[in-house]
Amino acid sequence: MRIVIIGGNAAGMSCAARARRNDESAEILVLERGEHVSYASCGLPYYVGGEITEREDLLVQTPHSLSAVLNITVRTGSEVVAIDPDAHTVEVSTTAGQETVAYDALVLTPGAKPFIPDIPGIGSSFVSTLRTVPDADRVTELARNATSAVVLGGGFIGLETAEALATRGLDVHVVDLAGHILPMMEPEIAAPAADQLRELGVQLHTGVSATSIIERVADGEAVDDTVDGNTGNTDDSTNDNGSAGRADTGKIVDSGIPNGSHAVELSNGDMLPADLVLVSIGVRPDAAIFEAAGIRCDRGAIDVDEHGRTSMPGIWAAGDATLSTDFVTGAKRPVALAGPANRAGRLIADDICNPKTARPIPATLGTAIIRIGKLAVARTGAGCGDLNRADIPFHAIHLEAAQHAGYFPGAAAMRMLVLFGDDGRLLGAQIVGGEGVDKRIDVFAAAIRSGAAIDDLIDEDLAYSPPFGQAKDPVNLAGMLGENVLSGKLRLWYAQELANVVRTDLILDVRNPAEFATGHVRRALNIPHTEVRTRMGEILDAAAGRPIAVMCASGKRSYFAYRILVQHGLSARNLSGGMHVLRDALGDSALTDSSLFESPNQADQADSTDSHSVSAHEGKAHA
Amino acid sequence: MRIVIIGGNAAGMSCAARARRNDESAEILVLERGEHVSYASCGLPYYVGGEITEREDLLVQTPHSLSAVLNITVRTGSEVVAIDPDAHTVEVSTTAGQETVAYDALVLTPGAKPFIPDIPGIGSSFVSTLRTVPDADRVTELARNATSAVVLGGGFIGLETAEALATRGLDVHVVDLAGHILPMMEPEIAAPAADQLRELGVQLHTGVSATSIIERVADGEAVDDTVDGNTGNTDDSTNDNGSAGRADTGKIVDSGIPNGSHAVELSNGDMLPADLVLVSIGVRPDAAIFEAAGIRCDRGAIDVDEHGRTSMPGIWAAGDATLSTDFVTGAKRPVALAGPANRAGRLIADDICNPKTARPIPATLGTAIIRIGKLAVARTGAGCGDLNRADIPFHAIHLEAAQHAGYFPGAAAMRMLVLFGDDGRLLGAQIVGGEGVDKRIDVFAAAIRSGAAIDDLIDEDLAYSPPFGQAKDPVNLAGMLGENVLSGKLRLWYAQELANVVRTDLILDVRNPAEFATGHVRRALNIPHTEVRTRMGEILDAAAGRPIAVMCASGKRSYFAYRILVQHGLSARNLSGGMHVLRDALGDSALTDSSLFESPNQADQADSTDSHSVSAHEGKAHA
Repeated sequence: MRIVIIGGNAAGMSCAARARRNDESAEILVLERGEHVSYASCGLPYYVGGEITEREDLLVQTPHSLSAVLNITVRTGSEVVAIDPDAHTVEVSTTAGQETVAYDALVLTPGAKPFIPDIPGIGSSFVSTLRTVPDADRVTELARNATSAVVLGGGFIGLETAEALATRGLDVHVVDLAGHILPMMEPEIAAPAADQLRELGVQLHTGVSATSIIERVADGEAVDDTVDGNTGNTDDSTNDNGSAGRADTGKIVDSGIPNGSHAVELSNGDMLPADLVLVSIGVRPDAAIFEAAGIRCDRGAIDVDEHGRTSMPGIWAAGDATLSTDFVTGAKRPVALAGPANRAGRLIADDICNPKTARPIPATLGTAIIRIGKLAVARTGAGCGDLNRADIPFHAIHLEAAQHAGYFPGAAAMRMLVLFGDDGRLLGAQIVGGEGVDKRIDVFAAAIRSGAAIDDLIDEDLAYSPPFGQAKDPVNLAGMLGENVLSGKLRLWYAQELANVVRTDLILDVRNPAEFATGHVRRALNIPHTEVRTRMGEILDAAAGRPIAVMCASGKRSYFAYRILVQHGLSARNLSGGMHVLRDALGDSALTDSSLFESPNQADQADSTDSHSVSAHEGKAHA
Repeated sequence: MRIVIIGGNAAGMSCAARARRNDESAEILVLERGEHVSYASCGLPYYVGGEITEREDLLVQTPHSLSAVLNITVRTGSEVVAIDPDAHTVEVSTTAGQETVAYDALVLTPGAKPFIPDIPGIGSSFVSTLRTVPDADRVTELARNATSAVVLGGGFIGLETAEALATRGLDVHVVDLAGHILPMMEPEIAAPAADQLRELGVQLHTGVSATSIIERVADGEAVDDTVDGNTGNTDDSTNDNGSAGRADTGKIVDSGIPNGSHAVELSNGDMLPADLVLVSIGVRPDAAIFEAAGIRCDRGAIDVDEHGRTSMPGIWAAGDATLSTDFVTGAKRPVALAGPANRAGRLIADDICNPKTARPIPATLGTAIIRIGKLAVARTGAGCGDLNRADIPFHAIHLEAAQHAGYFPGAAAMRMLVLFGDDGRLLGAQIVGGEGVDKRIDVFAAAIRSGAAIDDLIDEDLAYSPPFGQAKDPVNLAGMLGENVLSGKLRLWYAQELANVVRTDLILDVRNPAEFATGHVRRALNIPHTEVRTRMGEILDAAAGRPIAVMCASGKRSYFAYRILVQHGLSARNLSGGMHVLRDALGDSALTDSSLFESPNQADQADSTDSHSVSAHEGKAHA
C-alpha cells in the first residue's frame, strides 16, 4: 500500500509516523511544498524573541531522521498542484519539473495560509507573516535592524511576537479591529493581559484597522500604493532616527514618524512607525486545489467525517484545512490548533490501516493558552459569543482564587470565568493569572469533555499541598459558586447591567472604606461586610424598598453580605467578579463616566490594590 | 438551631462557615481543645524550613475573624470529654472546669493524632511530632540548637520536614520500615525522589525501624528507657561536636556518635546522631470518646454514610477521624487529607441545613502530592497494592514525557505510571518529575472520577503552547500507549520479570552503543533502533527461536523496534519504562547482581544520561 501525505507538519507527520507503526510494509510518502517538515510552528515567536536560541531546535524532525527511524520518504520542495481522485494520482511540481504520483490512500494536511489584508503597501519588503521557519528568519533579520514594529492582529501569534519584539528592545504597536486584544476571550479575561503587555512596553490600538503601509524611500517620499514585496531589502540607513522631528511633507511627518522610516496608517488616522510589520490577522484553510478536484468543502475548508474521511473515497484530511465539530455547540469550523491536528493525523492512520477498530476523531473544545509576560491566558469550550450564536442559554460566574495555599510564598489570584447551562452542564471556561492557569484550564477541559456539570467540580479530588494547590482548589471553588447559582442560593448581577442597576437598585459596596475611596459606583452605600449585620437599619433606610445590588472587590465578601441580606428577607443580587471584573469588562471609558462612577482621584485609583492586578490578599475563606 | 462542632480545623471550620451561609439564624459553636483553629497544618514543615517566614501566616483564621465575618463562636482550650447522644449534650472540659453544652446538630471533626511507636526514649524532650502550631514551635526551637536530626517515617510530612531541616543545615536521616521512602508510591516513582533527597544531603535508611532513642546526658551516660517528655529542654552544650571521636563506652561511641549527643538506634544495629527526632509514622483517628458513646466505628474510625451521618441521629462526622470510601476499590479507610476533609465539612453543613437537597460526600481518590527539592511526586486513584488487595486485575504502563515542547527551554521528562483495568477503565496514576506533575495528576484525577477509560485520554483537548504543554500532551501519550496495550498492539514486560526473562528470551537492547556500554542486561544483544530493519538477520540468529524482549532507556525507541519485529512475525515484548524504570524498580542490589547485569564500570553508569535523572533528549516523536 502506498500512503501519500500532502503536507509534512503536525497532522501529516503524525499520520505518517503512526501509519508506519501500523504497517511496516506500507510505502509512505510525504510531499511538502516548503523546505521543512515537522517544524516548531508554535515555537517561532520564541525564536524571534531569542528565548529559543538554536534555529535547529525548530526542526523537530528532518527527512533524514524520518527515514532512519520510520522508513518514511519525505520530499520537500514538492508542491501538489492537482489531484485526480478517480485515477488515484496527484500532480507534484518541483524545481525539476512536474510528476504524477499514484496513491492507495491520500491524506490532505496542507494546513492554512495567513490571511493577508488587501491594503496598500502590504507587499512591502518589511512586511512579513510568521508561519514558517523562513518567515521566522525574515522577521528575525528585519528585527535586527529595526527600532519599531507594528503587529497587525492581537491574537495568539501576534501577541507572542509583539512580546518577543518588545523583549528585543523594539518599540512595538499592536493593532486589532476588535474592541480588545485576544478577541477570543471575554474582555475581563483579556484586560489583565493587555495591562501586562503595556508593562512590557507594547502599545495597543484596538477597534481600529490598518488602512495602508507606507514605505519611506531614502529620499523622503512615500512609495505609491502598488508597491509590492519585490522592491528589495530596506536600506538600514532608512531606519536612522537621527532625523526624527525634522519637518517633511504629508501625514507621516505630521504624526512624528521620523523621515526615512516606514509607517502604518490606521483607520482613525493615527500613524505608527514600522520598521517591521507583522501580519497575524488569522489564517485561512489552504484547500483550493482540493475543492477544485471536487472534494466537498465548506467556506473553503475540507469537510470530513468523524474518521477524517473526505467526500472522496480513499482521501482523508486533517488539520487547519479541515472543518472540526465543536464539542459544546456542534458548530463546524476550522480550528487552527496543533493539538487537535496532531491527534487527528494519528487517528486517520488508524482508519487507513485498521478501519474496523479506528477511534473517531473527537469533537474539539478549542482549548488554547498564551503566555504574556508573567501571565497566562487560557480558554476551553465555548465562549459567551459562541453560546449566543448557538442559542444556548447559559450562566456565567467569575471568581478569583490563588493558585496555591495563601500562606505559602508567591500566592497570587487567578481570575476565572466559567459558563454552564441551565441544567448545570459545563460549557466553557476562561482563566487569566500567573502560575497554575494551565493546570486549571486542563481540568476544566477534562471535565467538559466528560460531560460534567458545574457542581460536579465540587467533588474533583485534586492534588493539594501548599506549593501546588489549595485544600479547596480554585476548580472546587468554581463548583461551589456555580452550585450556589444553580440552586438559586445566589443571584448575580453583571458589570454590563450597571447602567440599569444604578437606576433601579441600591448599590451596597461592602469593601472597606479605604478601598471604597479609590473609586466606586455613583451613590453606592459603603458598609464593610463585617458590619452588615449590625448596620442593617442603615441598609434598609438607604434601600427604601429597592432591591439591593451588593458588590465588593472580587465578589467574595459581597457574597457573605448577600447571604445575610437575603436571609433577612431582602431582594438582593451579588456583582459577579466584583469591582475587578466590573472595571475590566466596562473598560476605561465607562470608568470615566461620572454618571456611573465617582473616582475622586484617578491617580489613586491606578495605584489601588483594587485594580485588576491579581492579588491573594482576600483569599482566606470561601464558599 | 444550635450547631456544635467538635474540632476547629479543616472539616470543622468548613462546616461552620457553610452553615452560617446556609442559616443566618443558627447558633454555631466550635469547640477546639487546642490553642488554634483553622491553622495551616500542611504548612508546618515549610515554617520549620523557613520558607514560610511569619508564624501568623499559619493562623489562617482566628476566633476573632470568624466571629466578625461569620458570627461563629469559637472556644479554644475546650476539650470535649464525653457526649450524650440521647440527651443531645456534650461535656466540655476547660481550665475553668467542666460544662455541659446542648446541641441540635453535632459535628465530630476531631481529626487524628500522630501514631507514637512504643520504643524506649520516645518521650525524650528532643522528640516531637509535627501536627500543630505548638509542635512547629517546638521543632523549630529544637532545630535552632541542633546539628543532626532523625526523622522516623518517610511519608509526606516526614520528607517535607527532612528537607526543611536539611535546608537549615542539619545532618538529617530518614528512617522507614518500608523498602523505600514514600511507600504509598511504587518504587520506580519514589526512587527519583530518594535521589533528590540524597542530593539535598538527607540520608535514607529503609527497611529498618528505630528500636530506641537514646538521650545522652551531659556526663556521657545514656538515660534509662523510661525517660519522658518532662525532662526539660536539652542543654545546648550537649550538641557540641567538639568531643566527636573521643572514645567512650558502649554502642554510641562505637558508631561514632559524639559524646554527649543523643542518638537513635535502628533495628539493624546502626546508630544515628539525633539532636532532634521527628516522629511522623502516620496518624490514627482520634475518636475513642465517640466510640465509647456508642457511635459506630471501625478500626477506631467513625463510620459515616454518604452525607457524613454517623450511626446516631443528629450527629455527623468528617475528616481524618472518619472512614472514607475509596472511589476505585470501594475500600473503606480513613483518609487523612485536607482536601476531602474541607469539602466533606461543607457538604455536612448542607445536610444539616437542607437535607433534601444536600449533595453526597464523594468517594475519595486519595489524590496527593509532595514537593521534594525540585521534584514533585504525586498519585491519584489506586496503587498496585490497593488493586491487588481488592482483587482487581489491571494493566500498568510507564512513560516518560516532557512537560512542555522539547524545543522550548527547560523541557524535562516526567515519569508516569498509569494503571487501568481489562475494560480500559482508569484506576490510578503516579507521576514524578519537575514542572507540570501537579497538572497531569489533576487531569488524571478528573478523568478517573469521570469514569474515563485509558484510551479516552487520547482525546483530552489540553492547553498547548510551547511554554505549557505539548501538542501531544503527556496525558494524551499515556492514552495512546494504553490503547496500544489494550488493543493488543503492544505487549509489555516488566522489570520485576527480569530474572525469568533473561532465561527465556533474547534481550534486545536498542539503545545506542554508548548507552549500552554504561551498563546493560547480561547477554543482551545491542542493535540501535534505527538499525533493526537492516540487521534483522542478526536478531533472528541471536534469538534462535526464542521470544524477544526489547528494551531501551525509556521504552519509546524499543516500541518502534517492537513494532518492526512483530510485523516480521516474531514474538516480542517491550520493557515498560525501559532501563530507567528497570533500575529504579529493582534497586541497587539487583543492579550489582552479575547474573543479571553487566556494568563494566559502575562509575560510568552513575554518570550516564541513562540514569533515572529525567531528561528530554529523546522526546521528539512518540506514539
